[in-house]
Amino acid sequence: MKVRDRGILIGTLSPGNKNCITDVDGVKVGHVTLDYPINDTDYACTGVTAILPHEGSPFQEKVTAASYVINGFGKTTGLVQLNELGVLESPIMLTNTFGVPAVTQGTLEYMLKQNPEIGDTTGTVNVVVGECNDSYLNSIRHFPVKPEHAIEAIRKATDEAVVEGAVGAGKGMICFGHKGGIGTSSRIVSEYTLGCLVLSNFGKEEEFKYSHLKDDETEGLSETSDGSIMIVLATDAPLSDRQLLRVAKRCGIGLGRTGSHFGNGSGDIVIAFSTAHKIPHFNEKETEIRTQLREDLPVMNEFFTAAAEAAEEAILNSLSSADTTKGRNGHTVKAFPFK
Amino acid sequence: MKVRDRGILIGTLSPGNKNCITDVDGVKVGHVTLDYPINDTDYACTGVTAILPHEGSPFQEKVTAASYVINGFGKTTGLVQLNELGVLESPIMLTNTFGVPAVTQGTLEYMLKQNPEIGDTTGTVNVVVGECNDSYLNSIRHFPVKPEHAIEAIRKATDEAVVEGAVGAGKGMICFGHKGGIGTSSRIVSEYTLGCLVLSNFGKEEEFKYSHLKDDETEGLSETSDGSIMIVLATDAPLSDRQLLRVAKRCGIGLGRTGSHFGNGSGDIVIAFSTAHKIPHFNEKETEIRTQLREDLPVMNEFFTAAAEAAEEAILNSLSSADTTKGRNGHTVKAFPFK
Amino acid sequence: MKVRDRGILIGTLSPGNKNCITDVDGVKVGHVTLDYPINDTDYACTGVTAILPHEGSPFQEKVTAASYVINGFGKTTGLVQLNELGVLESPIMLTNTFGVPAVTQGTLEYMLKQNPEIGDTTGTVNVVVGECNDSYLNSIRHFPVKPEHAIEAIRKATDEAVVEGAVGAGKGMICFGHKGGIGTSSRIVSEYTLGCLVLSNFGKEEEFKYSHLKDDETEGLSETSDGSIMIVLATDAPLSDRQLLRVAKRCGIGLGRTGSHFGNGSGDIVIAFSTAHKIPHFNEKETEIRTQLREDLPVMNEFFTAAAEAAEEAILNSLSSADTTKGRNGHTVKAFPFK
Amino acid sequence: MKVRDRGILIGTLSPGNKNCITDVDGVKVGHVTLDYPINDTDYACTGVTAILPHEGSPFQEKVTAASYVINGFGKTTGLVQLNELGVLESPIMLTNTFGVPAVTQGTLEYMLKQNPEIGDTTGTVNVVVGECNDSYLNSIRHFPVKPEHAIEAIRKATDEAVVEGAVGAGKGMICFGHKGGIGTSSRIVSEYTLGCLVLSNFGKEEEFKYSHLKDDETEGLSETSDGSIMIVLATDAPLSDRQLLRVAKRCGIGLGRTGSHFGNGSGDIVIAFSTAHKIPHFNEKETEIRTQLREDLPVMNEFFTAAAEAAEEAILNSLSSADTTKGRNGHTVKAFPFK
Repeated sequence: MKVRDRGILIGTLSPGNKNCITDVDGVKVGHVTLDYPINDTDYACTGVTAILPHEGSPFQEKVTAASYVINGFGKTTGLVQLNELGVLESPIMLTNTFGVPAVTQGTLEYMLKQNPEIGDTTGTVNVVVGECNDSYLNSIRHFPVKPEHAIEAIRKATDEAVVEGAVGAGKGMICFGHKGGIGTSSRIVSEYTLGCLVLSNFGKEEEFKYSHLKDDETEGLSETSDGSIMIVLATDAPLSDRQLLRVAKRCGIGLGRTGSHFGNGSGDIVIAFSTAHKIPHFNEKETEIRTQLREDLPVMNEFFTAAAEAAEEAILNSLSSADTTKGRNGHTVKAFPFK
Repeated sequence: MKVRDRGILIGTLSPGNKNCITDVDGVKVGHVTLDYPINDTDYACTGVTAILPHEGSPFQEKVTAASYVINGFGKTTGLVQLNELGVLESPIMLTNTFGVPAVTQGTLEYMLKQNPEIGDTTGTVNVVVGECNDSYLNSIRHFPVKPEHAIEAIRKATDEAVVEGAVGAGKGMICFGHKGGIGTSSRIVSEYTLGCLVLSNFGKEEEFKYSHLKDDETEGLSETSDGSIMIVLATDAPLSDRQLLRVAKRCGIGLGRTGSHFGNGSGDIVIAFSTAHKIPHFNEKETEIRTQLREDLPVMNEFFTAAAEAAEEAILNSLSSADTTKGRNGHTVKAFPFK
Repeated sequence: MKVRDRGILIGTLSPGNKNCITDVDGVKVGHVTLDYPINDTDYACTGVTAILPHEGSPFQEKVTAASYVINGFGKTTGLVQLNELGVLESPIMLTNTFGVPAVTQGTLEYMLKQNPEIGDTTGTVNVVVGECNDSYLNSIRHFPVKPEHAIEAIRKATDEAVVEGAVGAGKGMICFGHKGGIGTSSRIVSEYTLGCLVLSNFGKEEEFKYSHLKDDETEGLSETSDGSIMIVLATDAPLSDRQLLRVAKRCGIGLGRTGSHFGNGSGDIVIAFSTAHKIPHFNEKETEIRTQLREDLPVMNEFFTAAAEAAEEAILNSLSSADTTKGRNGHTVKAFPFK
Repeated sequence: MKVRDRGILIGTLSPGNKNCITDVDGVKVGHVTLDYPINDTDYACTGVTAILPHEGSPFQEKVTAASYVINGFGKTTGLVQLNELGVLESPIMLTNTFGVPAVTQGTLEYMLKQNPEIGDTTGTVNVVVGECNDSYLNSIRHFPVKPEHAIEAIRKATDEAVVEGAVGAGKGMICFGHKGGIGTSSRIVSEYTLGCLVLSNFGKEEEFKYSHLKDDETEGLSETSDGSIMIVLATDAPLSDRQLLRVAKRCGIGLGRTGSHFGNGSGDIVIAFSTAHKIPHFNEKETEIRTQLREDLPVMNEFFTAAAEAAEEAILNSLSSADTTKGRNGHTVKAFPFK
């Protein structure tokens, strides 16, 4: 259940139809959730979430992209090349910290199968994988996430309303001492849509700026460490890589408004892409034509506002949708008791 | 009058004695305010503010420093070298956008007089000047700020409680459609002090997150453009340049919490320094010994929180202290009518 | 005299007609040289060089731009905004370190006169000024450069072959212990031109990789400090700001090949712009159409090669063209005695 | 065989005893080389190289570190956190592009075994893996590198003279159209040592600046693409993370001097660390004491020179030591025929 359905409105811009990142035409999201005991104390409480930038092959048709590290205590891969070239050429994959190699491997295998040229007659492919540490609930030392889970998450991706909360990569995440995980939202700006999806795993309960929305005296975890958050932005607006970077930076505003201080041990990372312009991998033309938004008109400020609002609302949605979850060592993390 | 005296508390950490950047031992602030008609329509409504890092010569004893550009639509000078070397070797000067060359010139002349070696037997000096655009009230095309105003601001600097509001560089600034300008605050973290001083000049009235604190129906300016904010952080904690950068980034949290979306046309820039370690200009020793805060203990997170809180409170103090001000073309900007 | 006329060929790509930055259509360069005794020991041995990106108003028609700091011990202004927005909206001005405020002031006055809207009905303007320290020959503490010299350099700018050596901002500069200063070169890449202009002021004689080209036993200065170099790149190729940044970085290759180790006290800074796309200051259209070079074709690598070659050759040209020069304190810097 | 043994001297500074990165006290290097046919056309011609920063646990005793991306067309992992915190807490692993997930996985498993607290009672660990694309010789689509190869490379690491050329991660690499791979070198600066190890895989034959050293008319490959280079710097000098970054940047000088133009498709990445200061993972003290090199004395410039020289010589050593190698599809890459 989204916070908007609880009467909590964030900002002034209107959300898209589904109030999901999938409001951006072509964007698809898929989850694989792992939830089973490994042994008496260990538990698989984790998963994988795949965000596909469009319906075609992300390698054959790359999209403009940028990333912004709000705080870099994180193990996200693929950003070096994404920043250098300003393009995304793989799905964006989310998982737990120690699941990154398996998810990279699985995504790589998927893409090699789809593109027999890669690593043979053409170059390699840059896979982007983000992560948060779910080790309070999930036995990450047991590596429950396998390469095939990444492939499955990609295959299951749809453009429908995104399932939120304790699902996919969000299965074991904790936010403000309560159950966090996947949250999503969107905003309409001029004729365009900006969508946001977060994997929330940060914050202490006493820092939460919306604690007045709590219904009862249920206390959250007190022992949480700094955690992290992955934020994915998608838009169909014709933004250049530099413009996407500027929009991505504004997600920190929304994050700060929920109560975060960008903790020392937090990997707070934003990855943004635009589907307005597909860049073919194979192409003989020396130049390409790009439409690009002018920055000095009010519409750019609306995108900035939209990014701040969408990030904040997506975080709240992750809390609002996540159910109480049990994991390793008998740990339980309670749902946030919204009024 | 500070917002704290109005009963508005920002965050949970305690402020220092004066709740000013001058709570950091040795830090001094001086203002020169210009306020006179130039002709029938033009008006000098501007000034200069100097922040001195310590009581000695900033060139002979440099301090560790870092800067962070939240949004770069601004003309601040001196950051290239400050970032490369991680040191500040001049006062930090604030003024209006077109006053930057005059203030740089005046500060340079002051420092050459204090240090006859500069540009003769030793190298040059890196002067840091920040700015916001006060052209709604101030006739910036007339260049009312002269080099001598910079020298005067440095000479007048004291470690007393800082005068806030429409004073010094803040004389002509506008924040959330009302009169802004200079604001300051501080926080105690462990045995250390973090001080913040802002030059606020950003935001539309409808974006202000504290508009519920307005006492009446006085409307602010509706025609404001993106504006800017300069944020200066000072601390006596032994933070390295990298650590100062991390702390500086958290000022964006406080800025966002007041309602800013880091507007496209805004120069939102943070300059941070630590007085814990003085680096002598002339020294034959090949190495130096530095004490440095460990980052993985809770104290670093407290510094992050302190930076967010201090920036937010300093902005509110700038609004709370600024009086209604008249300037060029008959323009008037009203004080924010706090309850 | 260019090194090419001495039979020294750098790289494999062909230079343009003039082997100057002015081979890029519309680019103009102007010098003002100051050369007179101030008193018995002090001497004005300095100047100003202006690079105009095109024949129109750089404010009304901005060009795409990027900057890259090879080493940041320098006082160049205007890079914060240039980097944020990816545009240049002023001439690029070069002068001595302490001439920066005067040149900024003069350029500002020139632009305000050309554009009565600036600072009145529209925003401000971002002036870009680069510098090197010529204090061995020039009495920088006397501030011989005045605002009017900047205006004069702009007014004198032409698209003819650029005068090189001890001229304009290059009057007092020293390179590898010999007389340096202004040098320029160009390269043809596909149907485009890349031009380079440097202000060379770095290096010890024993580091020079072309010392085998010395004709005699004339020794250079042994007491030189780290110095600096400003490098300006211009092209008519449709490169985005990110692409310009990538090309700008390759100037470090050429600089390194002459013998530089990017000295600690050196401000080694590249500013690059493309004239392919003019961005109007006043415009109501929400989007713009841009042609952009594809990066994965061989032509981008040729631009990288061209930037490395052009920077190296421009540095050599600065040495090759500069005459023996006398300055303050009876100092003399000898021309490099090419065979 | 090192180029120095062929009479080719690079620069003026003296190498250490072994002229290897292992001249830095405590640094160890281990190789695992894979060299076998997979089927009629496919061939495993690849490997793993591990660089251990010191003899203890890199997690329990972290070292100061920095990274610099010369050109970012690469898939190196672990840099986000290394840059944020300025520390290295794992071995630096090198392999082929598609071996990154397996090597990350293996290194992770090794470190979890060594440190039972990781992912259980303490946080996670940041593994750093660099790569180049060896797909001309190696069947990367078959993923010959497995997690156990990473563990084996770590276990085999010694502080002896490093085996160079077509070994470890260098087995399948190509440099200037000839066989490249692992090369190493070192320089003495004051009382300190700077060591460098490269994985060379870049450049076209006609770009090589040392082609006059070729003994015969053996032609190199003409069909090479942009390739990449990984450069690892180690030192026992007390350099801060910012200082290490500055030194790391100078490796680009050495790379450029061999003939590289930092090709578009090249992942040219430098990772630098200092063993002077070990940072304990578990520690209750709020501050630490650090010795730090002063930057304004000649010794810093010597480190810059050393980094440029060491990178250049390590690249030449990789060529000088590598034997002619056969791989997939009947491809052969010839050793560079030094005179």
